Parts: sequence; C-alpha cells; structure tokens
Amino acid sequence: MPESVKQGDKRQIARLISRIENGDPAREEILEALVPHTGRAHLIGVTGPPGAGKSTLLDALIRELRKRGKTVGVIAVDPTSPFTGGAILGDRVRMTGHALDPGVFIRSMGSRGHLGGLSGAAREAVMVLDAAGYDVILIETVGVGQAELDIMHLADTVVLVLNPTAGDVVQVFKAGIMEIADLFVINKADLPGTKRLRAEIEDLLDLSKHDADWRPPIIETVATRDEGISDWYEKLEEHREFQVASGEWDRRRRLRLENEVRQRMEEEFRKRLEEIWADPKFQEDLQSVARRLKKPGEVAVEWMKRTLRGQSGR
Amino acid sequence: MPESVKQGDKRQIARLISRIENGDPAREEILEALVPHTGRAHLIGVTGPPGAGKSTLLDALIRELRKRGKTVGVIAVDPTSPFTGGAILGDRVRMTGHALDPGVFIRSMGSRGHLGGLSGAAREAVMVLDAAGYDVILIETVGVGQAELDIMHLADTVVLVLNPTAGDVVQVFKAGIMEIADLFVINKADLPGTKRLRAEIEDLLDLSKHDADWRPPIIETVATRDEGISDWYEKLEEHREFQVASGEWDRRRRLRLENEVRQRMEEEFRKRLEEIWADPKFQEDLQSVARRLKKPGEVAVEWMKRTLRGQSGR
Repeated sequence: MPESVKQGDKRQIARLISRIENGDPAREEILEALVPHTGRAHLIGVTGPPGAGKSTLLDALIRELRKRGKTVGVIAVDPTSPFTGGAILGDRVRMTGHALDPGVFIRSMGSRGHLGGLSGAAREAVMVLDAAGYDVILIETVGVGQAELDIMHLADTVVLVLNPTAGDVVQVFKAGIMEIADLFVINKADLPGTKRLRAEIEDLLDLSKHDADWRPPIIETVATRDEGISDWYEKLEEHREFQVASGEWDRRRRLRLENEVRQRMEEEFRKRLEEIWADPKFQEDLQSVARRLKKPGEVAVEWMKRTLRGQSGR
Repeated sequence: MPESVKQGDKRQIARLISRIENGDPAREEILEALVPHTGRAHLIGVTGPPGAGKSTLLDALIRELRKRGKTVGVIAVDPTSPFTGGAILGDRVRMTGHALDPGVFIRSMGSRGHLGGLSGAAREAVMVLDAAGYDVILIETVGVGQAELDIMHLADTVVLVLNPTAGDVVQVFKAGIMEIADLFVINKADLPGTKRLRAEIEDLLDLSKHDADWRPPIIETVATRDEGISDWYEKLEEHREFQVASGEWDRRRRLRLENEVRQRMEEEFRKRLEEIWADPKFQEDLQSVARRLKKPGEVAVEWMKRTLRGQSGR
C-alpha cells in the first residue's frame, strides 16, 4: 500500500485521496493500510481571516521549507466552497510553480459531500500525505468559523495569520482560535498598525490560557518580499521540538489513533442503522410515529435495546 | 409540558431552549414531550450573502405577518459566530420593538457547543417554538456556506435574498442554495442592476432542477420602504398551500419525525461509546493501537462485534 502513495507520485496520491473522499468500497481498507505509515509528519495548521495574505505567505513558506530540504504536502480547505477544488488558495499556490516540484503536493477541498464532514475529509487526506512521507503537511483554511476551528484541531502547530489592516482581532478572539494558536504571524508587517496589532495580541494572550511553557511567539512577515519567513520557519521548528520534549507530540498521535478507532466504530454503527431502516418492522414503527401513536424516543430506545448487547462484564 | 412553552411566555420559552442547548439532563424528555405538539408551524428559511439587507427585510416581514394576525418565532443563526447570541441579525431585529410583542419571539444562536452542531441546535429550537404554537417560524442564516445549507434543509420554504449590488449570484449558485430555494427576493430593488440580477436568476433557474410544479418566483422588495413585503407574504402563503396540496407538507413532517428517531438512536449509541471508552479492556486495546501492535479498524470492528447484537431476524 505505501508503494501506492510514494512521495512524489502525485497522480497516485491524488487518486487515493479521491477514492477515500468518494467513499470507495475499499475506503476503510485503504485508511487501515495507511495507519502504520502515519505519525511522522509535522502537521501545521494555518488560518486567519480572508485578506490576511495567507496564499502569498504559504507560498513563501513552501519555498523556505524546500530550501531547507523538507518535502511539503498542502491541504487547502475552503469551508465556504461547496466544491472540492473550490478552495481558491490551493489553486493560487498551485499556480506558482510548485506543481512541477515532486517535493510539493497540493490538494484543495471544499465542503460538499463526505460523511465525516470537512474536517473528516481533511483528516483522511492528511493521513494519505503523512503516509506518503511528506515531512511537513500544511493545512490551510480561510476564515475563522467553527469549521476552521475543527480543522485546526488536526494540527500539531496552529498558526494564526493576521494583518495590521484587518482589525478583526477581537472577532478572531471570539472565534476561539486565539486559544489554540501556537504561533502568530503578522503579515504585511510593513503596513502601519503593526505595533498596535502586536500589542493587541499580547493583551489577548495574557487573557487566554496557553501551555505555561509555550507563550505563542508573534512573527512579523512581509510575504511579498520574503521577509520574516525563515524566522517563521525556525519558530515552527522550535514548537515541534517543544512538543516532542513535552510529550505532547506523542500524545497527539495517540489521540489521533484513538480518534480513528472512534470514527470506525461510528461507521460500523451507521451501517447497522441503515439495515435497521430497511427493516419492515422498523418502518411500521416509523408509521406509528408519523401517526403520533408512538414517540420518536420511545421507538429509538426500543430499537437500540434490540441492537445493543448488554454491556460486557454484566 | 406545553403549558411550559405557552406562546408569549417568552421567559419560559427562552429558558427551555437554553436547557436543551446546554444538554440539560432532562433534555431528551423535554424534546419527547414537545413532539406531539409540533408540525403546525410554517418553517421559513431565509438566507443569502451578507449585505443583502436580510435584517431589515426580516423586520418588515415580521411586521407584515403580525398585521395578518400571525404569530412569529425567529431563529437567527450565525455560523461564523462561536457564541450563542452572536448572531447580529437577531439582535438588530430584536431592537426594533418586537421585544415587547408577545406574538414575536426571537432567538439568536452561534456555532459553539451542542452535540448535533448548529443545525441540530436550530432544529431543537424550532421544535420548541413549533410546540409553543407560533404560526410562522423564520430561520435566518447569514452567508451561503455548508452550515447555512444544512440549516435551510429544516425549512418548508427556503427564501434566498439577493441584492443587485452584491453580484455574487454565481457563488450562491455554486453553494447549492439555488437548488433548494423556493422563493427569491431581490431586496434593494430600487437600485440599478435589478433587471440584470432577475435575468441571471431566471437563467440559473432554467439550469437548476426544481419541482416541475413550482417555479420559484422572484419578488422585488425595498425593505426600507416596506415595498413588496405583502407580495412576498402572499408568495410564501402560496408555497405553503402548494406543499399542502402536493403532500410535500406532510412528507416533510414525517421525515422530521424520522430524523428525530435517528438522532435519538445515535445519542443512545454515543452513550454506549462512552461506556466502552471507560472499559479497561478497551483502554488496553487502545494502548496496543498506540504501539502499532493493533490497527484502529481491527479494534473498532472487534468491539462493535461485542457491542451490536446479531441482526433481528437472523
């Protein structure tokens, strides 16, 4: 299986992700086969309000990573786009020539379809790129809504990108991303308002609770001129090393595997639900609910009693 | 139970919604008790890109409905707002005096918390207002993302609000809301570009598949001057009557009850999952997964075999 996701073999990788996204019958087996090969990559989430200049910034970071000899997988998610490939950023970045670099794989995804929702789709695409052996996987989202928050939870290192002109720090703070950000990037730091923004972030950092041993650094960049990018890279490395040392790195990988187990159990249950739905006796009960002769909860509990065994050990 | 959600008793209604949202231990019993009293209200979803003037429009519609002697429940959802009450619109509308009208109840909700996600929270709030006896329930969302789409699926009648200056019809089309819209409102129809927008919508309607017997009408309004609002009201009534006549009205109510059953079964399963997680034997297996001695799917399937009975009839 790893053969089929060899790094650089982009067509294979793209096809594999599509098969998983489209619920290929072999989907579960594919994911299962990937698991042993996952856990190596540094998962970096990059988010922030539109207009922060994330695409240019990401492009600059990719070049920096390549310069340092790291291979890069990019998953650009646009929760507002109902279509896969709708994520503008991925397309923009893709156009900047990385398409020809075997050490860079870029995938865009929108929000349509997929059982596990967008974060589920992103999670599985990450598994593929991780198993494919990319050193760094960048997960990029536009905006600061709930969907973005869910997706950022996949990452080892969460980067929040702001710019001096946006002035929506408080909104970002409200969105709860402040609390999970490990790193702040003030892009377009040549614009006025940078000092003010930095001060605002510092204040908010004082309010929000972070790991006592990691105060999120604030990096100033001018992506269009490649300024601050290598500094950014070093801070990303520092955070990785911090997490390895603190054990957080391993803890997260354990949690991801646990999450895989949970996901799979829920899928098994969903299959059973579909079988129950096909059961004529169950359909009769639904009729009674429609006629208000039975209540939904009543029917639900009754059928779950028939479906679930008594607990092990009882 | 219905006593506790008597129409006009806003404090009780608000408290009930909060109890459900906050996962009150009695949550399921509360919902169960509401069910028999639901199914009467006309659920109207109103969505569209920001800046379409939805708040003014909604305010005007509420006044129109009150003029016609209808009571109104409003659920204003802002998926980008992580906080309940974060939905600007609800607050804006609330300020326009309806707060004093016992025939109007307005609730804002953001995206934070809640098991079933935002659409789940909205669905349950709708149940409360429906059971409370409001004639019309307006479900309003900002934007045209996936979250909005999910929420719009709760409604009997979906209204898409656009304005001539926005010019993002195609994006809206991409978002898939076009297909589920039963009614189009061009607000700010006194602005130039109205004819063009109408023509664009007509073209897109020709492309998108709708119920052969219901071609979504396009209504022009100037909410700030109350223009077109009564026309809008009549089209909403027409659509309700159309759905009653076509059987769609009843079909949707049946589906909602079915959905209640499914939701409850999934909750029952989630509870069992938590019990499994607490099982030391299961924790041992998770350890083996972490040590890569077992695979997630392996453990998942094994435990689901222990959890699910063989199928009824086998």
